[in-house]
Amino acid sequence: MLLSRLLGERLKEKPGEASIISHVFLLRGGYVRQVANGIYSMLMPARRISRKIENIIREEMDRIDGQEVLFPVVLPAELWQESGRFESIGSELMRMKDRSGRDMLLGMTHEEAAVHLARSEAMTYAKYPFMIYQIQTKFRDEPRSRGGLIRVREFTMKDAYSFHTSQEDLELYYNKVFDSYHKIFERAGLPQVVSVASDTGMMGGNVAHEYMLLAESGEDSIIVCDSCDYRANMEVAASKTVCRSGEDSQTAGDDGMNQQIEEVYTPDMKSIDDICRFLKVEAAKLIKATVFSVENSKKPLIVFIRGDLQVNEAKLKRVVKANVFPYDERVDGNSGICFGFIGTRGIDAKNNTILFDESLKGQFNMVTGANKPDYHLTGINVERDIRPESYVEVAKVNEGDTCIKCGGRLSVKRGIEVGNIFQLGIKYTESMNMAYTDNDGRQRHPVMGCYGIGIGRLLACIIEAHHDDCGPIWPKSIAPWQIHICMINKKNDDVRKTGFEMYDKLSRRYEVIMDDRDVQAGIQFADADLLGIPLRLIVSSRNLEQGEVEVVSRDKTLREKVRLEELESFLEKVV
Amino acid sequence: MLLSRLLGERLKEKPGEASIISHVFLLRGGYVRQVANGIYSMLMPARRISRKIENIIREEMDRIDGQEVLFPVVLPAELWQESGRFESIGSELMRMKDRSGRDMLLGMTHEEAAVHLARSEAMTYAKYPFMIYQIQTKFRDEPRSRGGLIRVREFTMKDAYSFHTSQEDLELYYNKVFDSYHKIFERAGLPQVVSVASDTGMMGGNVAHEYMLLAESGEDSIIVCDSCDYRANMEVAASKTVCRSGEDSQTAGDDGMNQQIEEVYTPDMKSIDDICRFLKVEAAKLIKATVFSVENSKKPLIVFIRGDLQVNEAKLKRVVKANVFPYDERVDGNSGICFGFIGTRGIDAKNNTILFDESLKGQFNMVTGANKPDYHLTGINVERDIRPESYVEVAKVNEGDTCIKCGGRLSVKRGIEVGNIFQLGIKYTESMNMAYTDNDGRQRHPVMGCYGIGIGRLLACIIEAHHDDCGPIWPKSIAPWQIHICMINKKNDDVRKTGFEMYDKLSRRYEVIMDDRDVQAGIQFADADLLGIPLRLIVSSRNLEQGEVEVVSRDKTLREKVRLEELESFLEKVV
Repeated sequence: MLLSRLLGERLKEKPGEASIISHVFLLRGGYVRQVANGIYSMLMPARRISRKIENIIREEMDRIDGQEVLFPVVLPAELWQESGRFESIGSELMRMKDRSGRDMLLGMTHEEAAVHLARSEAMTYAKYPFMIYQIQTKFRDEPRSRGGLIRVREFTMKDAYSFHTSQEDLELYYNKVFDSYHKIFERAGLPQVVSVASDTGMMGGNVAHEYMLLAESGEDSIIVCDSCDYRANMEVAASKTVCRSGEDSQTAGDDGMNQQIEEVYTPDMKSIDDICRFLKVEAAKLIKATVFSVENSKKPLIVFIRGDLQVNEAKLKRVVKANVFPYDERVDGNSGICFGFIGTRGIDAKNNTILFDESLKGQFNMVTGANKPDYHLTGINVERDIRPESYVEVAKVNEGDTCIKCGGRLSVKRGIEVGNIFQLGIKYTESMNMAYTDNDGRQRHPVMGCYGIGIGRLLACIIEAHHDDCGPIWPKSIAPWQIHICMINKKNDDVRKTGFEMYDKLSRRYEVIMDDRDVQAGIQFADADLLGIPLRLIVSSRNLEQGEVEVVSRDKTLREKVRLEELESFLEKVV
Repeated sequence: MLLSRLLGERLKEKPGEASIISHVFLLRGGYVRQVANGIYSMLMPARRISRKIENIIREEMDRIDGQEVLFPVVLPAELWQESGRFESIGSELMRMKDRSGRDMLLGMTHEEAAVHLARSEAMTYAKYPFMIYQIQTKFRDEPRSRGGLIRVREFTMKDAYSFHTSQEDLELYYNKVFDSYHKIFERAGLPQVVSVASDTGMMGGNVAHEYMLLAESGEDSIIVCDSCDYRANMEVAASKTVCRSGEDSQTAGDDGMNQQIEEVYTPDMKSIDDICRFLKVEAAKLIKATVFSVENSKKPLIVFIRGDLQVNEAKLKRVVKANVFPYDERVDGNSGICFGFIGTRGIDAKNNTILFDESLKGQFNMVTGANKPDYHLTGINVERDIRPESYVEVAKVNEGDTCIKCGGRLSVKRGIEVGNIFQLGIKYTESMNMAYTDNDGRQRHPVMGCYGIGIGRLLACIIEAHHDDCGPIWPKSIAPWQIHICMINKKNDDVRKTGFEMYDKLSRRYEVIMDDRDVQAGIQFADADLLGIPLRLIVSSRNLEQGEVEVVSRDKTLREKVRLEELESFLEKVV
């Protein structure tokens, strides 16, 4: 490729709309251009990288017996009505009508399409297990697309679906994919990607893992143990700190269990801090109330939780199976809640939904609001005075919590999700009526797993992990070209002749791009940095006078003058 | 690949919904399954073929300096409003609204996206020419999808867009693509594909070619000269027969030029045949009227044409720039037209649109209707009595017409379009305001070409051209696998051992599928025929006793027993 012809201007300045580094370099390097909010066109260098990523994924999927297929982008609503997701998924599912008025949608994931394809083709147990995958465009009408290719509305994804005759067989295969994913990320230059236990979200099922690149710019929070291998997405993370029962948490000799309830005057003391200071108790002795609004519900949701903890909205969403938002009076109207003094006793359980977090279990000598202004109750024994019918687990794990697995210290890290795997069970095969005849002649629903990797996001993550101040440093395995030739002073006959000869010769063995423009060395080098090709050959008159060419690696670990006649054998070693 | 695991049942019977042969074998062989009308999922064998086709195309596009990019499937309406096509294209354009109520659409072609991408990146003449292409999903809401992958709503397409600083440069590049396309079809096993001059349709522009596989099942009609290389789509074809002027068409000594107009009584004679017989004249001496309805117009359209010719609706559409249909009184109301006796004189030119075909130019001694029941006029001299202000060229070329280029005989053939190329001019760059600074400092709109190939349709066409009664015969270059091993009597230890050893060994060098099922030889061979792999190795106990394996080619030109120890060197020669 000659750089003079390459479509995609390189920009000197950081574009205003970009804040995270991969977005900056994707724009500055002429890799992508935005077409609409969260919708991008890819230029040649990005397309070459994405194809290499795709091929790595393809090879690894084939290695674990994946069969590449192709599902449609546009799907009939009926399929999603069978699974129930046409109704259950909100406006991120892009719906439309075709010319005959039939409901259609854009696939944002393809469980339904996979079951539709497989259910007529795998009617007997002898066909199992099998895995089908595709690399295809998806659309998800994100409310907040951001960060260039990190969170977009249209994206290319590898999605895979496996079908099994037992949960054990699914788990066996799930572990294979688990390893395969690590291999993929390693081959794509991201060995540092970690797997974390995660929420199954709208997919359903029980076990799921996400693959995360730990990065400051990430929008996911991950709990990581400093001592053992415990790693979990904030949405499912647990810790000893949030799960300790009442008995564990009492200081020795605390006889608060038998305290009597007392009403105390707490004028204008609405915050945890105020009350703790006034009553001289720790936050852990308070019963805190957090109020939420629930999508499609007029009833406020009140969650009682230990005063030193916070409610994790993602966990709460899963519990109530609906979107929740911080309470908004404008949505819910006047609820009669006595804010600042909400308490467990005498609360209106008819017009509010009440939940108790696990952290309150067995707690005694607690403080709670009195449900009237300026008063609290002390001496509350949860099991004696409140007697909740059940508890939910919705507390947020915090930095410094105690690891539930080893007792070590937990940290909160930021991460970007680059892949996910799910054990789906029979959620889709049952609802969509996919069955096979088992060897005992009985009809059974196959057990299913699904496995995704977003190509564009992975590409962006590679920049997040591999760059310097001047641009991306592409790993060899996915670099758009392997060699970048700079001709310094193209007007010099020798330089031009040697440059083009080198280009022709090396192009037969390697992927080569050459800067054939009549521009200063500084501009050439800056552009080469933005293109991030692993190896740069600098052809200049000064070098040629010595019969040499300068070889520089993009990561600056190599800078060597090589005699022209030794160039090919030198490259053989380093490319 | 082990056949026992391959998803996609092979069917013994022809499925009811399939009529053309590629559709039949795509279903019977387990290559595709319908998801909705005109929307298919591709199973592994088809996906492997399509990927090989894609790679051939990619190589040839790269060879003519194409830059692979990726445009979005979902596009904002604004881009299509800029070009004017958001309004001008009918319901085949899939429109929808995103979550914020913004108008979006599914790309059915990507001129707008290409101009959008290129216009900010190619601001100076030095960047030109360049070509960008993608291989991506498109959606076109066809009213009548049919024939399996021949005419679908969702399809994968290679579409390419070139940009130039002059028409001459476009033409130069257009010729390169012209040749490149022939190379692509040849490499994909279809050297018989021909290029034909074609209509530019909704693309706009002037020059266009279609690439056609001649096939009985095709829905396009192509005019082909038996003597020279004249080939044109029916929609643009011309012939000496339909274009001959009045003087050419008169028999020598015909003094009809000076005939006087006479009204003759022609009771109930409404057809051309009736009149010819009654007045003892040839059809070519009649002025025939054909009446059409025009979309979005209340005025009937009357086309006068020589009595031996028919109106070509596609040509007429282009002339009136709107859809036309055979006249329907229910649509147009009572027009006052005297059907059966429509004539050029006294016709109501206010409430009807009147057009004259070129074939009437200079004609004399003609017969036309009298615009009243049961009467015709004879002795009409078109230039004397009608004096049309202009003529249009809308006559249909027929089998047996005289070639306009060489005077040879024209034939009508059926064909399937597998690709097309267009010279678009500045239609899009002007409307979308794409400009570059020329070397004289002036702003100019680049000249554009576009070039498409449908992957799925090409795949189907390969079947149309390469099959026997038992299934497809895939050309080596695009076959899903190269070698198909049949193990006859898998229960025999020797057979099983040799089969699996052979499979393992050959898989290292070739793409191999092995039938490892415990089924009869007949079923294995029938399935192998449907899978169409070029070379079949038959491992049976009878062959093994002789130390041999049978090698059979799918096209039956090769059937040979090869000694086991010589198999590899044998395969080296034939694969």
